[in-house]
This record gives sequence, C-alpha cells and structure tokens, in this order.
Amino acid sequence: MSVCLLTTTGDTDEGGCVQLTTDAWHTRWKRMCTGTGDSSSETWRTAPAFEPADLIPTAPPVTCTVLVSPWLQLDANDAGVRHDTEIALRQELAHCTFLNLTSAILPVPHLAHTPSYARATYAALSSSPLLRLAVRLPIYVSSADFCAPWQTWDSIRTLCEYHPRLSLALDLTPPLPTLLPPITGAYAAEPISHIMISAHSFISNAKGYPVLPKTTQSLVRGLLTSVPTVSFVLSHTDAKLHAEGGGDAYRQYLHHLIRTTQAREGSVEAYARGYGDFLQAPLQPLQDNLQNATYETFEQDPVKYANYEEAIYRALVDRAAMEHIVLCVSGAGRGPLITRALAALLRASAKSYTLYAIEKNPSAYLVLQQTFPHVHLLFGDMRSVEMPEKVDIVISELLGSFGDNELSPECLDGVERWMKPSAISIPSSYTAHLSPLSSSKLYNEARNTSGTGIGGEIPYVVMFQAVRRLSPTVADCWGFEHPRFEEEGPIKGDTRMSKRYTQSAMNPMLLVPPKDNGHNVRSAEMVFDIPEEGVLHGFAGYFEAVLYDTVGLSIHPDHKDVVSKDMLSWFPMFFPIREPMYLAAHSELHVSMWRLTDGKRVWYEWCAEGYLKGGFEKSKGWRRSSQASSSPMFHAPPSPMADAVETVVHGQVEGGGGKIKIGQTGLHNVGGRSSWIGL
Amino acid sequence: MSVCLLTTTGDTDEGGCVQLTTDAWHTRWKRMCTGTGDSSSETWRTAPAFEPADLIPTAPPVTCTVLVSPWLQLDANDAGVRHDTEIALRQELAHCTFLNLTSAILPVPHLAHTPSYARATYAALSSSPLLRLAVRLPIYVSSADFCAPWQTWDSIRTLCEYHPRLSLALDLTPPLPTLLPPITGAYAAEPISHIMISAHSFISNAKGYPVLPKTTQSLVRGLLTSVPTVSFVLSHTDAKLHAEGGGDAYRQYLHHLIRTTQAREGSVEAYARGYGDFLQAPLQPLQDNLQNATYETFEQDPVKYANYEEAIYRALVDRAAMEHIVLCVSGAGRGPLITRALAALLRASAKSYTLYAIEKNPSAYLVLQQTFPHVHLLFGDMRSVEMPEKVDIVISELLGSFGDNELSPECLDGVERWMKPSAISIPSSYTAHLSPLSSSKLYNEARNTSGTGIGGEIPYVVMFQAVRRLSPTVADCWGFEHPRFEEEGPIKGDTRMSKRYTQSAMNPMLLVPPKDNGHNVRSAEMVFDIPEEGVLHGFAGYFEAVLYDTVGLSIHPDHKDVVSKDMLSWFPMFFPIREPMYLAAHSELHVSMWRLTDGKRVWYEWCAEGYLKGGFEKSKGWRRSSQASSSPMFHAPPSPMADAVETVVHGQVEGGGGKIKIGQTGLHNVGGRSSWIGL
Repeated sequence: MSVCLLTTTGDTDEGGCVQLTTDAWHTRWKRMCTGTGDSSSETWRTAPAFEPADLIPTAPPVTCTVLVSPWLQLDANDAGVRHDTEIALRQELAHCTFLNLTSAILPVPHLAHTPSYARATYAALSSSPLLRLAVRLPIYVSSADFCAPWQTWDSIRTLCEYHPRLSLALDLTPPLPTLLPPITGAYAAEPISHIMISAHSFISNAKGYPVLPKTTQSLVRGLLTSVPTVSFVLSHTDAKLHAEGGGDAYRQYLHHLIRTTQAREGSVEAYARGYGDFLQAPLQPLQDNLQNATYETFEQDPVKYANYEEAIYRALVDRAAMEHIVLCVSGAGRGPLITRALAALLRASAKSYTLYAIEKNPSAYLVLQQTFPHVHLLFGDMRSVEMPEKVDIVISELLGSFGDNELSPECLDGVERWMKPSAISIPSSYTAHLSPLSSSKLYNEARNTSGTGIGGEIPYVVMFQAVRRLSPTVADCWGFEHPRFEEEGPIKGDTRMSKRYTQSAMNPMLLVPPKDNGHNVRSAEMVFDIPEEGVLHGFAGYFEAVLYDTVGLSIHPDHKDVVSKDMLSWFPMFFPIREPMYLAAHSELHVSMWRLTDGKRVWYEWCAEGYLKGGFEKSKGWRRSSQASSSPMFHAPPSPMADAVETVVHGQVEGGGGKIKIGQTGLHNVGGRSSWIGL
Repeated sequence: MSVCLLTTTGDTDEGGCVQLTTDAWHTRWKRMCTGTGDSSSETWRTAPAFEPADLIPTAPPVTCTVLVSPWLQLDANDAGVRHDTEIALRQELAHCTFLNLTSAILPVPHLAHTPSYARATYAALSSSPLLRLAVRLPIYVSSADFCAPWQTWDSIRTLCEYHPRLSLALDLTPPLPTLLPPITGAYAAEPISHIMISAHSFISNAKGYPVLPKTTQSLVRGLLTSVPTVSFVLSHTDAKLHAEGGGDAYRQYLHHLIRTTQAREGSVEAYARGYGDFLQAPLQPLQDNLQNATYETFEQDPVKYANYEEAIYRALVDRAAMEHIVLCVSGAGRGPLITRALAALLRASAKSYTLYAIEKNPSAYLVLQQTFPHVHLLFGDMRSVEMPEKVDIVISELLGSFGDNELSPECLDGVERWMKPSAISIPSSYTAHLSPLSSSKLYNEARNTSGTGIGGEIPYVVMFQAVRRLSPTVADCWGFEHPRFEEEGPIKGDTRMSKRYTQSAMNPMLLVPPKDNGHNVRSAEMVFDIPEEGVLHGFAGYFEAVLYDTVGLSIHPDHKDVVSKDMLSWFPMFFPIREPMYLAAHSELHVSMWRLTDGKRVWYEWCAEGYLKGGFEKSKGWRRSSQASSSPMFHAPPSPMADAVETVVHGQVEGGGGKIKIGQTGLHNVGGRSSWIGL
C-alpha cells in the first residue's frame, strides 16, 4: 500500500510512512515462534536478528515514520506468543534506531490483555530512548461500544504513566456514523501525533474530486484546533478510487482543510498562536516591578482599555451634576489608564476635575513624569502613599486571570483611606470561576516542574489548546467588591468575612481593614456534573469583572464574547492536581477551594472528590452518551454584564451522602507551601 | 470529667488525658468571634493569646495527651467561624508545644465541610512540627449509615496525604449494636493511637464489677491484634456507675483484656512480636552469601524441617525396591537438610545410598566439612558444579515468601543436567498467591523509601499487623514444577512457556533450558471481588509448596494451618502501589502481574484496575453490608496438600466490558527499574 505523510506545520511532505519488514519476516517469525519451537528459535531469542529478506531493500529517509509490523500482537491470548512478540518488537525498534528513525506507529491494541500491550510498550519506550512511539487506534469499532477505543488508550496511557514519548495515532479509516458521540471530545485532551486516513474514507464531490464526509470533516477540524501540529498519514492514494485529481487530490484536500481551520485573525487564539498549553508563572506586580516590554505587550489590548474608557465615561456622565470631580489612577504603570481617563473626561466634557496617578515602579514613574506633565503624579505604594485630598473615582487595573490573584483586594483595601463615602472603584467588583479540565499535555507539563518541588502545587497561566472540559458547568468561586464602606449589595464569596472592618477612631466614616487580612479570606465548595467519562488533570480558572454599570471584562468561556470579545490581556489560570483522577460517566465532582492569608502572604489551596451518582444505569456506549449530549453541552449562564442574576454556588454541596465515592485528591499547596503572593 | 489514659506497652498510666482550656475561654471566644466583632477580636486575630482564666491552673505532665477544646468546630457551616476556629486551634496547639506536650486529640469532625476540617488539621500539623494529632471519631453514629464515620476519616486522612503524625482516636462511647458491620474491619488498616471508652459503656457482671458488652469486647480484641500499642482513654471512671471495684476496676478490666488478647505462644505472630509491619528487603541468597546468624535463625523452624524429613522419608519408602539410591542436597547451607536426609534414610532403613551436598558459600562450606565428614561435599554453584554421577532425589530449600522470588526455578534448571530421567525434586512444585491489601502504615513505610527512588516499586517481606484484607479471595498467580524433563502434569502458570526446553545434542534424555530463561517467564491476570469499600495500598504475596506426595509448606492464609501450622521461616511478601486506590463497595479489582527476565536478571511487574460492577444498587450503610458479610468472609479453597483440585486463575478476566472503571494504577517496576534478582 502507498502511504504518504503530511504535516500541518508547513506544506512539506515528511518523507512518508513505511513498513520496514516484509512478509518473509512474518513467515519466518511464525515458523519460529508459533510452532513447537526448534533450536533456531532459541538462537533467535538469545540473539534476535533480521535476515536481508526480512526487510525492505532501501532504508527510508530519517524523517519517515515507521509502521511497526502490524501482525505483532503484544496483547495476544497466548502468553508465549506475547513473549516472542515483545522480542520481535524490540528487535524492530532497535533497527529503527540503527537507521536513525525517531518515530514509529505501533500495531492496533485489542480489548483483551491491554496491560500486557501497555507493559511491552512501556518497556520498549525505556529500551529505545530515541524513539517516539504512537499507539494506532481506530476511533470507531462498533456502535455497540463507542467508548471502548478511548478506554483502551486511556488504560495504556495510564499504565505507561503518561510517558512523554508516547502518543496516539488516531485511525479514521473505518467509516464513521453520521452522529458523532460525545466521547469523541475526549481525544481533544490526548497527545495525538498522527491522524490516519485511507483514500477509502473519501467520497467524491459533485466534480468527482475526493472530499471527506461531513462527520469526518468536522472531527478533523475539531482535532486540528486542539493539536494543530498533527501529522496526517494518507494511505491508498494511488488506488484510483476517485475520478478527478489523481493521487495528489487527497493531500490537496487536507491542506485546504488545515488552512480553513486556522483561528480567526484578531481572536485571542490567533494572538496566542505558539503559546498553546505553555505554562507560565502568573505575574506578581505587587512584589515584582514589571518590565517595559511587559507594559508594552499589555497596552496593545484593543478591547480592555476601550472598556475602561467607556466605564469611566459612564461614571462621569452619572456625576455630571458635581461641581468638581477627583479621580485617581492607582497603579498607573506607563499610563494607559491615564490616557483613557483623560479621553473620557474630554468626551464627558467635564468642567472641573483633578486627576491623580500613583505608581510604585520607579522606572515606570519616570515614563509617567515625561508623558503626563499636567497630571498629579504620586510615587509609592498605593497602600501607604499620602493623598492630598479625598477621591471620587479610583481607577485600577490590578486584576489577574483568576481575578484576585494579583492582590487587587489587598491593594484596594489600602486606598479606601482616602476615598469619599460616595466614592466608587473601577472595577467595582470581580469574581473567580472554576471548571474541571482534562489534558495529558498540561498534566505532563505541570508534573515536569516537580523537580522544583512545585509540581501540581502551583497555579499557572496558560492558553488552553489540547484540553477537554469535563463539565458543562463553570462554577462561581467567590467575589470581591470595592469600596467596602458603603452598605453592601449581594456579593459572591463569603459576605460575613468581607464585613470584617472596624470603625476608625479618628474618622467614623472610615473603616479600617483588619491587620490579619482575614476579611479577604475566601472559601468555595463547588459541585460539577460529569456527563461523560474522562480523566481529571486540574481546573481552569477564569475571572469576570464589573468595571462600572454594565461595562466589564471577562475571560469566562460562556460570557467573554458578550462582555469583552477579543480581549487579549488574560489567558486562563490552570490549577493542576498531582495525580490524575478517573471519572466515570454520570459522576459528580466535589471541589473545595480556598483563598488564604497569614497577613504576609496570600495563597490558594484546593482539593477534589469524585462520586458516582446513586441509582444510575450503566452507560450503554455512545447511544446513551449522545442522549446526554442532546442537552446543550456548554450552556451559558447569565453574565452580570448582561443582567443582574448570578448562579450562586454556596450551599450546593450535598456531601457524599447517597453517592458512591470513586476518588479523591490530597490537599494541594497546604499552607502555601509551593506558591504565594507577597503582601 | 475525670479521664485516665493507659497503654498496652507496660502497665504504667501515661499521666492521663486533660483539656487545657476552661469555660471562661469558650465564653470569651464566643463573645469575640460569633458576635458582630469588636476591636478586641481584631487584636486577638492579629496576636492570638490566652488570659490566665482561659486555662487550667496547673500544667499537666509532658506524657499527658491533650483533649483540644471540643467546641472548636473546624467544619462549622459559617466560614467566618471556621476562620476564627482555626486561629483558636493554632493558639491552643502552640501552647501545647510551649508546655512540651506532644500528643493532642482533635474535636469530632462532622459530616459537612470535611475538606475544611482536613485543611485546618493539615495546616496545624505543618505549623506544629512536634505534635502528634489524633482525630476523635465515634465509631458509631446511627444504624442508618455505619460507613459514614470511616468515610469521614478516610477523607481527612487522604486530604492530609497520610501525614505520619496524624492518627485516629476511636471513640467507643456510643453504645454499639449487637451485630458489628463488616466496615468495622476497615479500622484494622488505620493508624489508631487511642481507643476512647467511657465508664458508661461498661455493664455490670454477675459480681457487680464493670465489664464491656460482648460486641465492644470483641471489637477491642480485634483492634488490639492490629494495633497492640494503642492507648486507652477512660472517662467517667469516678462516676460510681458500677457497684464493685471502684474507679480502678475499669483499668484493671482493660488490662485483663489486653493480657488475654496476646498471640498464642509458638505461633508465628508471637515469634514475630515487634516485627509487625516492618518492611524488610527479601533475601537474595543466590547473589549474596548468607550470614551465620541468618542460617542460625532459619534452622530454628520447628515445622519446616520436620516436613522436609517426612517428605524425604516418604520418597525413600516409595523407592524401597531400588538397589542403590543417590540423593543430593542442593544448597546445603550449614546442613539442616543433610541432617534431615540422614534421619529419613535411617527411618526408612535404606540399605545402600550415596548422599551428596552442594554449597556455594565458602564459610558455610567450611561448617559442612567439619559437621559432615562422611557426606560427599561439593563446593560451587549447583548450576555449574561437576557431579560424579546422576541423582535420584534432589533436595533443596530455595523458596522465598512468593515461592520463586529467590530464583529456585533458575537454580533447579541447572541441576537437571545430572538428574536421572526417573529422578524427583523435593520440593516437586510451588505456587505464588496474591491478595489485595489495605494498610495506611505499610503505604507510608513503602512511600518513605521513595527517597531511594524505589518507593512503591520494590516488593518487601513483612509480618502483617495493621492490615485489612480487601477481598475474600487469595488468587493463584503461577507455579513451577521440578524436574521438567518428564511429561508434565497440569501445572499453574503458563505451561506453554514452561515447555520451552530443547533436546541436548549429546544426551537425548537431557533437556537444556533456553539461555534467555524465557521458559521461567510468567504472567497472571486475577480478578478480586471487593465486598466492602476500602483503600487499596498494595498486595500480599504468599507461597505454597508441595515437597513430596501430600507433604508441603504453606504460608497461604487459608491453607497454612492445614499444611504447615506454626511454621516460622517465611513472612508474607508485600507488593506496594505508589498511589492509594479508593474502591467502592461491590467493586472488582483486576490485577496483572508478571515474572520477567532478561537472561541476567529476574523481576516482577504489577498493575491494577478497579471496576464497579454494573447494575448494582447503592450500598445502604451497614445493614446492606452485613448481608454481604453473612457469606463467609475468608473461605478456604482446597489446598493441593489436602486434595488435588486447584482454583485456576487464567482466563478468569472478563475485561472491563460491562463494568464501570473507577481507578487504575500505573505499571510498577517497569523493566525491573527498582528491584531485581541477579542470575
């Protein structure tokens, strides 16, 4: 069979995909290993070696991917055959290494003896340190049990301990049903290196050219968004199965598919190209002074500052009646908010105003002095700086991907000293949101930082790519409101804690936050429905902020396009767990999370428990699943910017009571042992 | 209330168990923390401190155990109360450390907000490095859900990551039902430091003296066997609740209970006293030469050598017709088997015989020369030594706790060169057996060796104590038979592999084992029923050997008393897993195990998958469970020594098919990365 291989990165053929061994080898191996065995088989077992006829005459190029002899059954029923198969596999892989080949696709695993298949694979990975191995997996076996292939892969991948050199070669050759079952979504979180398609899988379009059926097409498009660097293995292209286009038509079609699947220009996905699944440590602007380049980058955001200007403008309009208005940009950086504030003041044709700006970063302060000679600049930490007068509007941009993770609550506590009783803060409130995630890639990335002792203990900022959302729900964790000294409206998070202010002796209007920072402690208990089976690797963290009125900022997956479409400044947060947790279909995930402080530091802790919902009927393959999916998989709860209603999470937890526990994590980052933010 | 504390180790009272705080503190704390809060509460939160009236006047002795203020609700519904409770807990524990006290009992956890209770506990363990903390747990809440207390403890212990300073204070005060549910067995695997009993739990015997009700009694006796060093916390002893004996009667009764629960003298448990749950590296007599003391110890066994003598005797009787008989003790050590062989020859009044003995350990060989001047001694490895003539009976003691783990199969392969076609081996066969185990202690012990990189990767020899068998089944792994060159009977393990012998060119009678040692490779797939919920920490490994006829050796828990009662030479094997696996009630555990070789080394690999059986009805607390237990929990399958039938494991695996996967381990010891036995 003729096989060609092409990649999404550049249009160059990677030198194909070949099988090194011949039928002669198959015959010889069968004679030696499946009969009663003779002295020749003994010799072979002690010193496994090919004879010239066992191999194709010419060595393939080093960029080529090897198809390991498909008849090698690592999971054969006969343990003796398994034993000899493993010897043959190591012999073949050793020859690959000799030929400088670095990528091989293993035979299809069967349902029985998966542990033996996995063990042989793991042993091969260990004995061939230069080889990347892919498990060939037909995505579809029978409508009876659509989950089986993924389950098999999941077992192999888990038994091989998420080996970084083990990947998945997804075989789309068998014809797919018209309705794709939800389990297909599971592959988005897997390390797919190859997509295998036969010319037989193509149909002819009106003009007689080969095209993929709609289902296969959408499946491939879906996979391309999560693994943009996948390689395609095309087979039987010269079988003349389609009238037009010849052997090249198939590749041309796939190239077309790849080109037309790329992220829309201007979208955060396009902006973040190349950053996919790359773990970054969150910024800590309070304890570190940001670099010029960092300011540069974030000032580019086309949406964020526009929304800030609109919020300031609306606030000014609502205060048009005021004689004189005092504004302060707290944490001005190089001044983007000053620019926007001035623009808003102009638009609102404010008659009389004073604009202050505070900055603690001496280098940035220098830039401010040069850029804004007419603005009242104050140098220092907003929590301690001396303000000449009380302020009406405090404007700040202290938010992190999880809202409060850059210490906005603590910083804004410190400015309330010099806010008028009627003063407002822009942003006026912000909330943190969480959702369970599956991703082999992110699990491996986080685990590899464990050399530093922080593996699975520290939250990261990351642009998600090869991930799968395990639950339709994105739960609210908690929230913060500013300022605090007026009567509070209903806020998310723990109101009692947030009320922990005491009257100042000097000024009865002024409330002083407690030294222990306890009012900024938060805790949340969340329950997530898990409709389809999957493996939990961690949690996605998002924020949403109300700047003023109905103007806001949001990276909440279900709200962001309504609130701040194409905003680039924030990638989501990723809270990893140390050990993957397997979650059966129709299970429930209970997650506890805390925002803690000791007065000097702030940190998060998190943990999770998995339960199987009582009285369930066991999943009957994909038919059952597709029903589950008929209810919208990713419904969007209303956003505060759209209307006032909020889905509140507190009190949702029913406790494992009538449920069956199926898994649990330990506590992560206890006492902030691995990650903290200095106050 | 008056509380006294006594321990099973020696009869000395440990200086009691006291509560440090007074009602005054409770009142003051409530005023500060559950009201609206005033400046005093702020002061306290920033610098938590007791006032004199908050504490009992006199500091207790350092041996005393502290009862932490029972009103501290670490899992209160109000997050604010939880916050202040945690401050109060740390304040109280800090004072314990100041007073040099090292053991404290935490308040009873409730069902809600368990993660918060666990988080506060974990934080306390981290901030008080000198303190051991025990979670007080009433074993019985209501007949509605007997599992709830253990489940709560399991969550706390797991969230605290099996912290070595965290233990369980089991509270038996609430009256127990007459029928103890199976879940009670779960406590045997937990780190219990205290058993709390109130005088109210006692009833009066005929003479009016306080005694415990039968259920409580058997429960305590059960616990004492798994945690012999537990401390008892006795309360209300001076409440004059019973007519006779006064306050001391309760302690005297418990002492009586302790004394009468100790292991029977002569039993392996008594022999192993002090070795409980102590992990030992298995002997490797092939690559290491044993020490004199080691020989000394093992020669003490009252049962093992008696059975060997009986086996040899019966073999001789069956061969009485022979003119001349040649015996060889292969691996004679200091000669115990020579002694027994001579005794057997005498008993069988054998007319004409030759007795050879082979030993590779030069020091032991020296002893042999002095002790047995009339025996034909040969120095060297039995696999290479030159034998003057062919042998009728080969006698060896090369068995390990898992049967083949000291390379008996490889060694005995090497002696078949000089065995007559009609020759026999004593032992003639042996089998390995496996059973899933739960044990916090063993998990922690194995984990702590992970600094060496072998945590959870290497099998240990250990005398089980604080363990719980998770399944009624002890499955057969595989077996070996000697010699191999006659037609084989049905043997366990993989027969096809074991037939991998080739004819020798020189002597057609003689079969040569393949150099790659592949015929000694084994694999087993086992399925275990898990009737009650529990946590898997590893597997218990046992062996059973047929010496000759119906004479054998066994440490199989269900056979050992029939086959070789009170044999001392072998503790069981423990195969740990790296991460605990939670198993729900009515689940099924699939275990794969391999015995592998590369011709130079031999090692084991293992892994496990957990499934929930389809179409189950969810466990309704203990009533449901007690039914499950009404079927004998530890039935004994027939032993080869009792009769010929064997429960064969191969082909039992049904594959995860109709089941719901709930957990999976990675592969352990891949490629023998952490443990091996040199050939």
